[in-house]
Amino acid sequence: MYYLGPEGSFSNEVANMVNGNKIPLRSISEIFSRVYTDNNAIGVVPIENSIEGPVHETLDNLYKYDEIYVNSYIEKEIKLVLAVNTNVKRIEDIKRLYSHNHALQEARETLQKLKIENIIPVESTSAAALYASKDEYGAAICSQYAASVYGLKIFLNNIQDNLNITRFVTISKSLTTSGERTMIFFNVPHKPGALYRALEKFYKYNINLTMIYSRPLKVIPWQYYFYLEFEGELRDSKTIDLIEELKSVVTNIKIKGSYSKLQYQASNFLG
Amino acid sequence: MYYLGPEGSFSNEVANMVNGNKIPLRSISEIFSRVYTDNNAIGVVPIENSIEGPVHETLDNLYKYDEIYVNSYIEKEIKLVLAVNTNVKRIEDIKRLYSHNHALQEARETLQKLKIENIIPVESTSAAALYASKDEYGAAICSQYAASVYGLKIFLNNIQDNLNITRFVTISKSLTTSGERTMIFFNVPHKPGALYRALEKFYKYNINLTMIYSRPLKVIPWQYYFYLEFEGELRDSKTIDLIEELKSVVTNIKIKGSYSKLQYQASNFLG
Repeated sequence: MYYLGPEGSFSNEVANMVNGNKIPLRSISEIFSRVYTDNNAIGVVPIENSIEGPVHETLDNLYKYDEIYVNSYIEKEIKLVLAVNTNVKRIEDIKRLYSHNHALQEARETLQKLKIENIIPVESTSAAALYASKDEYGAAICSQYAASVYGLKIFLNNIQDNLNITRFVTISKSLTTSGERTMIFFNVPHKPGALYRALEKFYKYNINLTMIYSRPLKVIPWQYYFYLEFEGELRDSKTIDLIEELKSVVTNIKIKGSYSKLQYQASNFLG
Repeated sequence: MYYLGPEGSFSNEVANMVNGNKIPLRSISEIFSRVYTDNNAIGVVPIENSIEGPVHETLDNLYKYDEIYVNSYIEKEIKLVLAVNTNVKRIEDIKRLYSHNHALQEARETLQKLKIENIIPVESTSAAALYASKDEYGAAICSQYAASVYGLKIFLNNIQDNLNITRFVTISKSLTTSGERTMIFFNVPHKPGALYRALEKFYKYNINLTMIYSRPLKVIPWQYYFYLEFEGELRDSKTIDLIEELKSVVTNIKIKGSYSKLQYQASNFLG
């Protein structure tokens, strides 16, 4: 199971839900490239965030690798803690606070109250935890998990300002055809009503869309490629009929598989 | 005219197409905030790129400020040059090459041929030009414009691997109702066929969509807000009828104005 490192990352926490060895990699593209070359590999990648929106690097790689499919999805609430080096006894002892820029923004209200002056933006929240563990007057804004991986003491819990959920998907070279949801990509001819005609098919079969994003088709400026997820599974005749009909109104259709939500309790879904 | 600095940026080049003082700012959000507080101000911001897709910070700010409208759009092809300090006579003299990570990726093929070893990623291509101008063995991958602003000598032109166009919009607190295109935002109820019913209205009036993006509605996870641009103008009765009918199937509609493409020759469009 390849995940976006370093150890202690939110992706690491999600990867722990699945059995097997966990291997941290440096980028989403590297995860796809390793899954592509190793037929038995599984990867876990973030696909969208409830505040930031789609993760372009994941969508672009799902588009690029026709032989890589989605096998499950996982929703992870991004909770932040203020964690300190075990040497720090009081808030006033903190000389340096490490975190990632996004996390600093997400914990703005708490930061304003604490009045810590020396804030150091670093490459990830898990790296922040690592740095704080090596700095006797250091603190980090990170996940509870990263704090535990790097032996920090938690001072404050749930310091994020907003509800923030990241959705991850597991990927492999196996197409799965059953599950609650199905992912397909396509583009539409550049003429009035083209997207409308595609969505009409979903309406006809009373199928609910659960995700829709568009990205420019890189080779032709200002034409869009659509990334959709909907309720239903590929082994269902209704879904098969839908896709057959879609083929008459869209082009370059890519089928990325059917899958269900992986719950935290599960341990052998992909084992 | 506020633009995303520093001086010599692609935004600066686009801002030069419009008369009046040019004031560089440090972020897109700062441009919106200044246009909001100064009733007579104009800003220029990137909205989408033919390779990278939508500029989220611009879409989110257009959503946030109901009183800020779009008044024109500009397409700018992103061309890169290899430019050097005037002290550099041959490629072999280059000791340090400065650029932004995106530009380094866009010029990958040229970089592989040149075999320059010491590549330094910096915050923008215009900053790269500035650093090269202060380093007697320095070079930069930047725009021709940035090279001229900072007095560099151009060694190679058009070193970008792909056609790469960024679309910019000018913004102000004035709603314009005439032009080739109109921008509106809305969300749809969370039920099957909701987006279909909205697009049906465009189909009925034979109106072509020229942009469609979705972003999560931050307050409710996994519900989407749609950002659309279409052919037509607000002063046209067809567009008025379309928007009236849309109101029965979408919610929270925001009208961002009608506008035309600003050509490089034009100098007093907004003067």
